[in-house]
Amino acid sequence: MILALAGGVGGAKLATGLAGILGPDQLAIAVNTGDDFVFQGLSISPDLDTVTYTLAGLNDQEKGWGLAEESWQFLAALERLGGEAWFKLGDKDLATHVMRSYWLSKGWTLSEVTARICSALGITHQVFPMSDDPVRTFLDTEIGELDFQTYFVRERCQPKVRNVRYVGADQAKPSEAFMKTLQDTYLSAIIICPSNPILSVAPILAVQGVSPSLRSHPAPVIAVSPIIEGKAVKGPAAKLFRELGKDPSVAGVAEYYGDLLDGLVIDAKDKDRAAIRQKTLITNTLMQTDQDKKNLASDVLEFARSLI
Amino acid sequence: MILALAGGVGGAKLATGLAGILGPDQLAIAVNTGDDFVFQGLSISPDLDTVTYTLAGLNDQEKGWGLAEESWQFLAALERLGGEAWFKLGDKDLATHVMRSYWLSKGWTLSEVTARICSALGITHQVFPMSDDPVRTFLDTEIGELDFQTYFVRERCQPKVRNVRYVGADQAKPSEAFMKTLQDTYLSAIIICPSNPILSVAPILAVQGVSPSLRSHPAPVIAVSPIIEGKAVKGPAAKLFRELGKDPSVAGVAEYYGDLLDGLVIDAKDKDRAAIRQKTLITNTLMQTDQDKKNLASDVLEFARSLI
Repeated sequence: MILALAGGVGGAKLATGLAGILGPDQLAIAVNTGDDFVFQGLSISPDLDTVTYTLAGLNDQEKGWGLAEESWQFLAALERLGGEAWFKLGDKDLATHVMRSYWLSKGWTLSEVTARICSALGITHQVFPMSDDPVRTFLDTEIGELDFQTYFVRERCQPKVRNVRYVGADQAKPSEAFMKTLQDTYLSAIIICPSNPILSVAPILAVQGVSPSLRSHPAPVIAVSPIIEGKAVKGPAAKLFRELGKDPSVAGVAEYYGDLLDGLVIDAKDKDRAAIRQKTLITNTLMQTDQDKKNLASDVLEFARSLI
Repeated sequence: MILALAGGVGGAKLATGLAGILGPDQLAIAVNTGDDFVFQGLSISPDLDTVTYTLAGLNDQEKGWGLAEESWQFLAALERLGGEAWFKLGDKDLATHVMRSYWLSKGWTLSEVTARICSALGITHQVFPMSDDPVRTFLDTEIGELDFQTYFVRERCQPKVRNVRYVGADQAKPSEAFMKTLQDTYLSAIIICPSNPILSVAPILAVQGVSPSLRSHPAPVIAVSPIIEGKAVKGPAAKLFRELGKDPSVAGVAEYYGDLLDGLVIDAKDKDRAAIRQKTLITNTLMQTDQDKKNLASDVLEFARSLI
């Protein structure tokens, strides 16, 4: 059994690569929910949706978020009614939010909702939220404290960040499936996908008991760096590292995760590796094609086996 | 001031005709909410939407319901997720339901929501729900008791009806604007639009105090028959009259409303008028074009003046 910790786009890509190699009972994917929010009454879980849409092959590969062949009639009508339209809700994507909101209102857990969506989309690997309790990422920025989506989507990551808080994390329990996987004696590797360490991975690690479980489990913990040659493949990871006084490089990623990691996977282009203390695997980490995803997944799994 | 009582399609048509003749401060439209329901978490008010969409010129004239140039991506995605898709939610229409649900969840009244939608759609005449309290129409049928939408949409009005109940009506107060209009001394006519008497008009009349107010107000009460030559222009009015032991004809409509009415407007094609006790206006009541709507509105207003 392999456990992957995933945020949005980068996490979804590696998770898809792993799912292409591993059987349904060999892979479990725990997804960040710190970005979840309620937008005009709709419960939205952006990272879970990115992961499930990507696993189902329904994601928009060009935009990098949302569904392929999406349309925007709803959003235009919403704007006409005076609704807020800065978070782009596509007509097809909306079905997920309406059904999730409805199921949650009936008392289902987010895990149950996610399992139902996976089953409907034909996803056979286990996907679950990091927690069924609310955790919300807030950013203390130069223009005031912002919730994640306001910072990320509405403000397009422009405001300088001074601090990040994962509100509720210390009271949040891992979801049942996550807890079970963390305690699984057959668990042979924990892979931290190339998601934003501060915004996507840290909320997962901040959930009650997750970090200690990773440290105490005999399985190796491996991260894939989302930063290549000082730049984030996507999103504000490098910018955020810089603003928080960290080195925006693979060395910075290595230092950020510290002794939680048994190994770090970095890109072959990255020369700045002298300061990395963990064992490293040097390979192609940029996933542009489906084959790239599978190749990286295969490299990471082999690296994991070498660390046991 | 003219007060129109309206259900869905027929009501929306005559209301639009009246709005084409009367100024914003001369027409108030009270709309049936007995068909309202919550569908997978979304608060839907079908008659209010038909009236506002028609007044705004945004309605689909061919289908007779919903918005013109509608698309159905949401519905297909909803079905894929295992959602119920028998009530046809279009991508654009959905914005109304999402915003209404959101505003109601924030504590707005349905009247406030309706006013906001009207303002956003550029509707200057007053449109309000019959009540801000819930009234739900239930039909006792040969296959059991059905709520209105299950009967009307899912079962396509097929099951034989034995009885109709307007649950909550005796505890429901007229909305504030409706109450104010009913007490308006400048009110010079009350027009019952050609909507289904049993399913669309009766719920309005069943709201606390509405029927007595209509009877005691000096302004004439005029209905336009939705039945022409024994057939409903649209929907199950004639079928329902028959199943409930009433005469499916203009005479049956006249008898159904009884002494509530000062006048009844019937179609020129209708020959079966001998049994009608109220004063009648005979004219073209079939509204196919915008000019038809205005002509009928104008005829009805003139008839009203003759009855003062």
